[in-house]
Amino acid sequence: MPRSSLTGGLIGSPKVEVFVDMGHPFLNRTFDGFLKIGTVAATSVVAEETYHCVRKGSISKAKVEDALKKMCKEGAYWGAVAGVYVGMEYGVERVRGTRDWKNAMLGGALTGAVISVASNKKADQIVIDAIKGSAIATAAEFLNYLT
Amino acid sequence: MPRSSLTGGLIGSPKVEVFVDMGHPFLNRTFDGFLKIGTVAATSVVAEETYHCVRKGSISKAKVEDALKKMCKEGAYWGAVAGVYVGMEYGVERVRGTRDWKNAMLGGALTGAVISVASNKKADQIVIDAIKGSAIATAAEFLNYLT
Repeated sequence: MPRSSLTGGLIGSPKVEVFVDMGHPFLNRTFDGFLKIGTVAATSVVAEETYHCVRKGSISKAKVEDALKKMCKEGAYWGAVAGVYVGMEYGVERVRGTRDWKNAMLGGALTGAVISVASNKKADQIVIDAIKGSAIATAAEFLNYLT
Repeated sequence: MPRSSLTGGLIGSPKVEVFVDMGHPFLNRTFDGFLKIGTVAATSVVAEETYHCVRKGSISKAKVEDALKKMCKEGAYWGAVAGVYVGMEYGVERVRGTRDWKNAMLGGALTGAVISVASNKKADQIVIDAIKGSAIATAAEFLNYLT
C-alpha cells in the first residue's frame, strides 16, 4: 500500500503518514513512488531554504512562501518522474517475466521518453532523453548492487 | 573484486572484462563503482552518438573521435562520482555499524560535498551540492525498495 511518512527534526517529532490504496498493484506502486520521492525532493528543498535563511540570518514571509512553492514544484516533478519510472519498471517486469538490471534499463528508457513527450520536446530530444533515462536508471541499479 | 564487463551488440559479441584487486574492500568497492558506472555512462554516449549518426546518415572520422572523447569524459565523471559515493557509503556504514537508507543520505551528502570541493566551488555551493547529493542518493535508495 502506498505509504509516505514525513518526520521533522523539531521537538516532539511531527509525523505525517499517508495511506492510500488505489486498488491495483501497478497504481499502488506508481503512487507510492510519487509520494516517497516527492517527499525526498520536498525535504531537500526545506534543507536548502533553511540553509539560505540561516546563512543570511533573516526569514521573511515572502521567503517562506517562495520555499513552499518550490517544495510543491520540485516534489511534484521528482514524484512524477519516480512514479512513471516505478510504474514502467513494474510493467517491464510483468512483460519480461524476470527481474534484473535490464528492467531498470528499459524502465528508465520508457520513463525518459514519457517525460520527454509530456514536456513537448522534439522527436530527436525524446530519443536522447530515453537514452539518458536508461543510463541513469541502470547506474542507480548497479550502484545498489555495489553498496 | 572490482570487475567490469562491457558487451557490445556486434556479431561475435566482443566482451571486455577487467579484474583488479586493490587489496582493501574500501578501495575495491570504490574502484568497482568507478568501473561499473563509468561503463554505463560511456555506453550511453555510444548509444547517443550512434543515434545521431544514423539520423544524419553520415559518419566521419572527426565524429568518431569526438564520440570517443565524450565517452572518456562522461565515463570518468560518472565513474568518479559513483566511486566517491560507494566509498563514502561504505565508510558511513562502517562508522554507523548499520545498513539503512540513512547511509545513502549521509553518503550522498559527503559525495556532493567532495565533488563540489573538487570542482573548486564556493562554500555556499558546497552545502547546496551536499544537500542535493543527499536527496538524489536517498531517492535512488528508496526507488530500489519500491521496485
